[in-house]
Amino acid sequence: MSERPKKLSDGEVEGALASLAGWKVENGKLHREYKFGSFVEAFGFMASGALVAESMNHHPEWFNVYSTVRIDLTTHDLGGISTNDLEMAKRFETLARSRGGK
Amino acid sequence: MSERPKKLSDGEVEGALASLAGWKVENGKLHREYKFGSFVEAFGFMASGALVAESMNHHPEWFNVYSTVRIDLTTHDLGGISTNDLEMAKRFETLARSRGGK
Repeated sequence: MSERPKKLSDGEVEGALASLAGWKVENGKLHREYKFGSFVEAFGFMASGALVAESMNHHPEWFNVYSTVRIDLTTHDLGGISTNDLEMAKRFETLARSRGGK
Repeated sequence: MSERPKKLSDGEVEGALASLAGWKVENGKLHREYKFGSFVEAFGFMASGALVAESMNHHPEWFNVYSTVRIDLTTHDLGGISTNDLEMAKRFETLARSRGGK
């Protein structure tokens, strides 16, 4: 990220969610659960997502069991959901869809 | 795994834990939390572990945030901790230690 991340207001988050199908706010974090066709697809998504995360120097909280991946995004330094989380959600969404994630 | 997995008794699990530092039983599952030096090391461990899991056709429940990985192992088909979980714990332990996991 070349721009400094900014904390988003609740209204800004709500507005952004309108174009992020499946994502919602849960426990103050951007949350999404993906179901893939297999563990290989699920972990393939995580491997791609890990490269995105490291390149953004911003990291998800995520859980995997078999073909399910649950993701929570927040920016601890800013005490809430930031532009970084939104950017990550968009990039994860693209990666997940390319692997059949629903 | 060429051998059919077998459910372990509580005593068998306790005996096995004696040689698996850091592992314990939590909520009826084999549980371990690893701390690595970075996200790269943590996810590198997960990538290696994913290959082991897929080759065993046995998959962990695991959570990652930054340099922390939390793992729960159980065998749903057998309703408890099995020889498969023990084998996976041993292999994960080797992988984690080779990456400085503690």
